[in-house]
Amino acid sequence: MDNLTKRATDVLSDADVVVGYSTYIDLIAPLIAGKEIISTGMTREVARVEAAIEQALAGKSCAIVSSGDSGIYAMAGLVFETCEIKAVTVVAPGSKKELPEDSEVLTVEVVPGIPALCSGAALLGAPLTHDFATISLSDLLTPWERIEQRIEAAAGSDFVIVLYNPKSKKRTWQLERARQILLKHRDKNTPVGIVSRAMRDKQNVEIVTLETMHTTDVDMQTTVFIGSSTSSRYLEFMYTPRGYTRKYDIK
Amino acid sequence: MDNLTKRATDVLSDADVVVGYSTYIDLIAPLIAGKEIISTGMTREVARVEAAIEQALAGKSCAIVSSGDSGIYAMAGLVFETCEIKAVTVVAPGSKKELPEDSEVLTVEVVPGIPALCSGAALLGAPLTHDFATISLSDLLTPWERIEQRIEAAAGSDFVIVLYNPKSKKRTWQLERARQILLKHRDKNTPVGIVSRAMRDKQNVEIVTLETMHTTDVDMQTTVFIGSSTSSRYLEFMYTPRGYTRKYDIK
Repeated sequence: MDNLTKRATDVLSDADVVVGYSTYIDLIAPLIAGKEIISTGMTREVARVEAAIEQALAGKSCAIVSSGDSGIYAMAGLVFETCEIKAVTVVAPGSKKELPEDSEVLTVEVVPGIPALCSGAALLGAPLTHDFATISLSDLLTPWERIEQRIEAAAGSDFVIVLYNPKSKKRTWQLERARQILLKHRDKNTPVGIVSRAMRDKQNVEIVTLETMHTTDVDMQTTVFIGSSTSSRYLEFMYTPRGYTRKYDIK
Repeated sequence: MDNLTKRATDVLSDADVVVGYSTYIDLIAPLIAGKEIISTGMTREVARVEAAIEQALAGKSCAIVSSGDSGIYAMAGLVFETCEIKAVTVVAPGSKKELPEDSEVLTVEVVPGIPALCSGAALLGAPLTHDFATISLSDLLTPWERIEQRIEAAAGSDFVIVLYNPKSKKRTWQLERARQILLKHRDKNTPVGIVSRAMRDKQNVEIVTLETMHTTDVDMQTTVFIGSSTSSRYLEFMYTPRGYTRKYDIK
């Protein structure tokens, strides 16, 4: 919880109801003792968001929790999508918009957090100090062809690449397929950082190369960082320099 | 300062010396009162990092501050690069590596923070809940051809695109050039979010389209978010749905 912001802590403390996947609710248990909790399993995101909207429309202050940042591959998008479908009017905190009196209105604040791409990068060193592309390998809601096209495009234009959802119990081949595409564009010695459960229990951090990378310890709580042509490994760390042409002069 | 994490606050509080660009030092003045400060102007990054390393080698606990997250287009990479060039051995906190006794050794902890891509996204709604590419338009250290190639690649494979350093006093044409490239690949009504000084004084948030986007209020403290083909605007917000195929069912 060292990586929660003050704003996140304050919002949780002020909430009447806290809604979230049970694993994440457990992580913040000490902060939300005594509050009403709506907690459901992994695949029940829509039900969770609908429950949260219902509570908020009933006048309760309601916090939906995700791991990392709720705006990066997480629940925030679904809140707006669901409100739009249900024709619930949403406004930002402090909004000066004039509202029709008879409409249902919710004030929605998205509280930014530390996403896995930041916590993982910090544990690896500094792989993301230059341009990067973030790609989820989950083909549950996105066609694989589209994902593969993005890997090709990012690999071909020398982005550092952050892979979310690299592997699950049911999706086991995607990361190896991504590696094959990357090897067409990048040197086999390109550094690859593999971070699981960053800054949580059972954290694991490993730096390998595109050639030696394996998927043994990779799961849904893992983020994989593929270096660009300029990324390098120094001792226990992986970093990407700021510039292609070195205009600065270190002695 | 509501968006600092507890860890960042603790590290600042424990530091003997705080090093940073003067604007950022001013932002955290209340947290570092009475400490030794090494503060230099905008283009003196190398000098700042060298000063910090010198202080740390002299045995002082030294914090280098960036705005946002120090690992996203910020100072963390330069720390490792400088240590490598100077042959200073660096280890992670709690490292179990055996070290040669006579070498200069620094323990380096990168503390993750809330980067502009997260704070900006939160103010806009939820533009980054699916794949995105982050590109700096500064061609001071990267050739423009490389930047343009990345914009083409990201635009052509339907990434949401986050543009850092879109414009400065001296670099005025890059954002308009990027817009022209984007218009080759994306509908002119694609939502574009423009966020300046997110969660700081004089914050400004605007949602326009690729067609109506202008660069009047854009500067080095602005981050620009270009929607993908599925991003949409709802009232005061911009969001990207999770999936291409809607497998979930909202009533």
